[in-house]
Amino acid sequence: MKVVRSIKEMQEISNDLKKVGKSIGFVPTMGFLHEGHLSLVRRAKEENDIVVVSIFVNPLQFGPKEDFNSYPRDEERDLNLLRDLADFVFIPEAKEMYPEGYSTYVEVENLTTNLCGRFRPGHFKGVTTVVLKLFNIVKPTRAYFGKKDYQQFRVIERMALDLNLEIEVVPCEIVREKNGLAMSSRNVYLTKDEFEETSIIYKALSYGKELIEEENIRDPKVVIDKIKEIIQSAKSLKKIDYIQIVEPITLQDVDKIESPVVILFAGYFGNARLIDNVEVNL
Amino acid sequence: MKVVRSIKEMQEISNDLKKVGKSIGFVPTMGFLHEGHLSLVRRAKEENDIVVVSIFVNPLQFGPKEDFNSYPRDEERDLNLLRDLADFVFIPEAKEMYPEGYSTYVEVENLTTNLCGRFRPGHFKGVTTVVLKLFNIVKPTRAYFGKKDYQQFRVIERMALDLNLEIEVVPCEIVREKNGLAMSSRNVYLTKDEFEETSIIYKALSYGKELIEEENIRDPKVVIDKIKEIIQSAKSLKKIDYIQIVEPITLQDVDKIESPVVILFAGYFGNARLIDNVEVNL
Repeated sequence: MKVVRSIKEMQEISNDLKKVGKSIGFVPTMGFLHEGHLSLVRRAKEENDIVVVSIFVNPLQFGPKEDFNSYPRDEERDLNLLRDLADFVFIPEAKEMYPEGYSTYVEVENLTTNLCGRFRPGHFKGVTTVVLKLFNIVKPTRAYFGKKDYQQFRVIERMALDLNLEIEVVPCEIVREKNGLAMSSRNVYLTKDEFEETSIIYKALSYGKELIEEENIRDPKVVIDKIKEIIQSAKSLKKIDYIQIVEPITLQDVDKIESPVVILFAGYFGNARLIDNVEVNL
Repeated sequence: MKVVRSIKEMQEISNDLKKVGKSIGFVPTMGFLHEGHLSLVRRAKEENDIVVVSIFVNPLQFGPKEDFNSYPRDEERDLNLLRDLADFVFIPEAKEMYPEGYSTYVEVENLTTNLCGRFRPGHFKGVTTVVLKLFNIVKPTRAYFGKKDYQQFRVIERMALDLNLEIEVVPCEIVREKNGLAMSSRNVYLTKDEFEETSIIYKALSYGKELIEEENIRDPKVVIDKIKEIIQSAKSLKKIDYIQIVEPITLQDVDKIESPVVILFAGYFGNARLIDNVEVNL
């Protein structure tokens, strides 16, 4: 496993790999890796000749009041976790990614106005911009994204299609803690008591899924109210940003549940903003 | 010379060329080719193994009140002009470039707020979006742009740098009619009398350059007023959008002329919006 810190060096490595016909599987991360990330890396290893993991806490995707400074970082631990899985770990510096005079931004409209887009203005603009840059540097054949960040996955899938990137955007299943909480680097913000209470999120979303798939409830409002009632029973819940039921491709709220949908939650337990979702098959 | 109309076919051709190590010179155009375009194509041919020219009147870069529908088109004539110069002519269809659900846009901030950006809202967003798509499809080693569209050249140069595209953006000298008018597909909008009067533009800009380089005038206002006075003497001048003196990289107006600058003009003669510029060396 080789650690690469320069953009130019990473591009040369990728260009050389492409020239000899190697497929590149890419897992972009913000580091502080957990089993969710590692499942993406393992999948990338299975499906490609070479695996590149990037670690970059992207300042562009954090709002001014968000947790960029406190976001957990542990490069040494990350590198140890990747040792037998990745061929290259790309760790660029912010000042090389966004040098003085940097001015170019990519936005996926429509898909970014709903859900987290309503609560984190500029977030997805920061995500698409950095991911496009990383794609241009790493030149992957396939790029792997966890479905915990469902909206992010759909936005990047759309960007890759719209910009003719010839990169396969591969969604991967959510990896959960034993209590059901979706794994996230931000889970370290939770106290032990808060962590225990977060099990309610996945339970509530799963109950919503059951209401639709098995009880044939078709009114999203009925399902959402039930989920909200369950989650609100948690004492350490500070705030719900949203509970929404949307169409999987356009991410627009549905009036009536008649085809596959996704139920998504975002909210705060203690100081941790948590997101989760379940896909509903019909 | 091969005409390619499908995005997928063009990408396959470019991928195959890259695999065998061929350099690709790319000239993106909106067609209705003139000697300015052909000078770019000849330069691309000199400096690369393979030359790709695209012809695409990009709806995204025209404002609702602009001349998208009346923009001159003549594919047969264009193909004849390119016959001995280009290896591939890529002519995509708008419905394949922007299919239903298309949502992704690229913007270069800062550089696009001044000059034409003030008069054509959304224009550069349309330009950068289509050029990035074309770059991703054609995968050029070098891309050629005329300096008549000076702001466009700087904006695309910035985009290529910011997005780590590894494409050399090559600026090419303005090609002029015998009377000094910068060549443009839009010049066909001019009547014979209007065309003759447009010679004043380059004369006035050249006089401005002389005032700075030889008369040592350092106050941009003095130079601009002199240029304006000259251009306003033309009867068929309908409207001046701007005469500005800017720093070449940031495109910001200068208070005092102390280093190289560019003097730019945009305005209407009859129904034709014309732009032109001269670079001033100090």
